Amino acid sequence: MIFVDACLKKQTKYTPVWMMRQAGRYLPEYMRVRAEAGDFLSLCKDYKRASEVTIQPVDILGVDAAILFSDILVVPLEMGMGLKFLKGEGPVFDEPIKTQDDLDKLDANKAVKNLNYVYDTIKLTRENLANDKALIGFLGAPWTLATYMIEGQGSKNYAICKKMLYSNPELLHKILDNVTKACIGYAKMQIRSGVNAIQIFDSWAAALEESAFFEFSWSYILRIVDEIKREFADFPVIVFPKGISGYLPKISGNFDVFGVDWSTPIELAKAHLADKYVLQGNMEPTRLYSQSAIDEGIDKILSVMQGQNHIFNLGHGILPDIPVQNAKYFIKQVQERSARG
Amino acid sequence: MIFVDACLKKQTKYTPVWMMRQAGRYLPEYMRVRAEAGDFLSLCKDYKRASEVTIQPVDILGVDAAILFSDILVVPLEMGMGLKFLKGEGPVFDEPIKTQDDLDKLDANKAVKNLNYVYDTIKLTRENLANDKALIGFLGAPWTLATYMIEGQGSKNYAICKKMLYSNPELLHKILDNVTKACIGYAKMQIRSGVNAIQIFDSWAAALEESAFFEFSWSYILRIVDEIKREFADFPVIVFPKGISGYLPKISGNFDVFGVDWSTPIELAKAHLADKYVLQGNMEPTRLYSQSAIDEGIDKILSVMQGQNHIFNLGHGILPDIPVQNAKYFIKQVQERSARG
Repeated sequence: MIFVDACLKKQTKYTPVWMMRQAGRYLPEYMRVRAEAGDFLSLCKDYKRASEVTIQPVDILGVDAAILFSDILVVPLEMGMGLKFLKGEGPVFDEPIKTQDDLDKLDANKAVKNLNYVYDTIKLTRENLANDKALIGFLGAPWTLATYMIEGQGSKNYAICKKMLYSNPELLHKILDNVTKACIGYAKMQIRSGVNAIQIFDSWAAALEESAFFEFSWSYILRIVDEIKREFADFPVIVFPKGISGYLPKISGNFDVFGVDWSTPIELAKAHLADKYVLQGNMEPTRLYSQSAIDEGIDKILSVMQGQNHIFNLGHGILPDIPVQNAKYFIKQVQERSARG
Repeated sequence: MIFVDACLKKQTKYTPVWMMRQAGRYLPEYMRVRAEAGDFLSLCKDYKRASEVTIQPVDILGVDAAILFSDILVVPLEMGMGLKFLKGEGPVFDEPIKTQDDLDKLDANKAVKNLNYVYDTIKLTRENLANDKALIGFLGAPWTLATYMIEGQGSKNYAICKKMLYSNPELLHKILDNVTKACIGYAKMQIRSGVNAIQIFDSWAAALEESAFFEFSWSYILRIVDEIKREFADFPVIVFPKGISGYLPKISGNFDVFGVDWSTPIELAKAHLADKYVLQGNMEPTRLYSQSAIDEGIDKILSVMQGQNHIFNLGHGILPDIPVQNAKYFIKQVQERSARG
């Protein structure tokens, strides 16, 4: 698989490419299956339909890897937290964690067992996916999951989390520790079920100043990476802490691939990380509105990375109003423009 | 004035300090005056009340500088764009700019004249403010203003702006050019009216990838800086492009002070900029929830900057639910802990 080869720094014929949120709302085929499933969470739990939308972008766009269709919040959901996705408001937890007692009601081991619909999605997808296409599993970083579990929903300033961080850091660490246990078990079960790589999304990394990021987020990500590597030494692990270009000088760990968001200049990421890690990214997602902007963005990133230790991707998820023909054009252009004799 | 001295790299007895949004909702005294004025825009246009809330934080907290109470969007408003502030939704322009014709209806010169209520606020404030306290004027960077003028309101992905940027960059440049003319005239009039320094807020700088930032935002900021400096050579100019720590290696210009947001490690800003510029910032605003977090944050930043070319501030605006006693504590602790023999 060209994608896995690139994760492991092997030479590839071209730079493999996929897109975050490639199984998503810009695809009419996805919208049809989602409507059949009823709502977003029902689609996550319906392993046949989840597998179908996982494979769609491979068939339609020709990406080099599929990414499991699911949501990062299934982990706290299956730890025992009631979760709804409200139209226009996003995810809402019925009872956010405020105290140790609230935390004690949650069960990390139960979550790892209850997530069997995800493992079923993985098994079915791996059966139906072409042999040369990788299947990427994923999970949310403990910090990002904890922001939802504590705030109860998405947040602008993370005020409740920050009050806990500064006034009761012990409780925040206990929450993160418990979520991390669930994440480790969940990641290992995804691997045993057949994913070929796994990505840890720290979507709200940038909610933390540098010292807090390393204490409350990065340390838990590294614990997950180390636990995966202890059991699956050569298994490719991708980390994607978003919006922390200022913290790159201090980034290191046992992972293989570092996801570069679009606000981090690729030259900067290369300077800090490319001697040890494969870089994944980082095209500005709104370039997909225009084919000439796609060409320019691809050429710039390819000229910096020179086919070395690089996986192409957008620097954030594909937007819902991108024309499908532009998404196709993007994938094809990356594969053609990066082709090596 | 200790604040102006610090802007101009003169030695000061302690590190001067103020807070972005210090005339704001966390202050009961501000809420009272705002209620009297009726609504936010009416308060901006009522020079007596605007002056009153400008001075409040100096009296209540003992900050070393007042910042003009106003809003960045008064510039497009007075260029001729209908503007409302809707509860819970923020600013909304009646007719966003879509075409050259829309742009042709706007008048930069008229804006500079019509903003006389701001100049009146400045004159009255400068009369009533203690001689040792600076008054900071401000304006929005052209790119940040243009995002509102084009999207019609705040935006998550800036999709309309990005479509214009990639498909019709000429029109975007024309809009920015026109706004920049208004900004230059407005800045000069603020200076003539009596402000002691001026800050250019590029709140949405991080909406742009690196190359687009330098082309569509930073170049216009530098034009404003240069025009100010041509007429007022020693007048302190502060720039605050938010969220661009990845672009710091390429930042330079004729400004005096660089505002460091809290997501940029102060060591990183120091390494890139402190040989040429005064740094302003950069404490994490949620530290103000806790006095021990305040102490820790102050000590860390002071230990890096060592009293050299530094103005203390938060790395973003003060949040509405910060207790006033913590804001007071913050200001006092900065002034005491940074005091030099």
